[in-house]
Amino acid sequence: MVLTTSEIFQGLTLAQLDQLALSVKEAEMTSGQWLFHEGQDGDVVYLLIEGAVEFILEVDDTFLPISILRTPGDCFGTSALIHPHKYSISARCLEEGKLLIIERNQLQKLIDENREFGRTIMTNLAEYLLARLNETRRELVVHFRNLFRTTQ
Amino acid sequence: MVLTTSEIFQGLTLAQLDQLALSVKEAEMTSGQWLFHEGQDGDVVYLLIEGAVEFILEVDDTFLPISILRTPGDCFGTSALIHPHKYSISARCLEEGKLLIIERNQLQKLIDENREFGRTIMTNLAEYLLARLNETRRELVVHFRNLFRTTQ
Repeated sequence: MVLTTSEIFQGLTLAQLDQLALSVKEAEMTSGQWLFHEGQDGDVVYLLIEGAVEFILEVDDTFLPISILRTPGDCFGTSALIHPHKYSISARCLEEGKLLIIERNQLQKLIDENREFGRTIMTNLAEYLLARLNETRRELVVHFRNLFRTTQ
Repeated sequence: MVLTTSEIFQGLTLAQLDQLALSVKEAEMTSGQWLFHEGQDGDVVYLLIEGAVEFILEVDDTFLPISILRTPGDCFGTSALIHPHKYSISARCLEEGKLLIIERNQLQKLIDENREFGRTIMTNLAEYLLARLNETRRELVVHFRNLFRTTQ
């Protein structure tokens, strides 16, 4: 079960995982399918079961690929859990596969009703976002370096 | 009191803020003073009272300025609260001023002992990190655009 391997759900008790498992369903995805676009209401959080998902920044008419997710249990669409509950990047299926879909409202209910559950999930989410922030900063450094080289 | 205006401490009860206020102290900073370097153990979290702080990525011998903080109540050094509790960027005083310093161990103790407090702080922290992530992605887009223009 990918729920138990996902970094976002680490540290939950078995009872909490059982409760969470009631709120999930599986879905297929096909290559090229958009899962969501930046700015859309974040209604669901996704866990990758198999296949690959690409994250994209849409700039005018250009698609700027940011990263690719391939590891089962990897979580995405997590900004659905954070005010103002909108996706902050676009996601497209790169290789067909399966997703675990968690309704945001149901996950949010568990977070609101159970402080222990909420603290654990939000701590994991902060850790996950800090890792993405550090990756993106490193990416920025690479671009600065390239720009510096091309202007030398 | 900057504690009450800081985005990281929004939603705490007055009793929780009072408890937190016991764990803080003020410190002066002078222009050019390094507050921390990337990779150092994150022993304290900072709130800006007055002055300005610059965030820097250190790449080889080059300092890459990322952003500047000027708003009283702005929080930084927050990666101290996230495993592995190290600063993920460097910070230097740009204009002399005052800081509120919160010992990480004491803040962590409040988070661990009080699930409600922990859930609130971690939710705020996730929101803060998502905002930084989105800013950094936008920055990346600007660089891609510039690069695209210079190679046209």
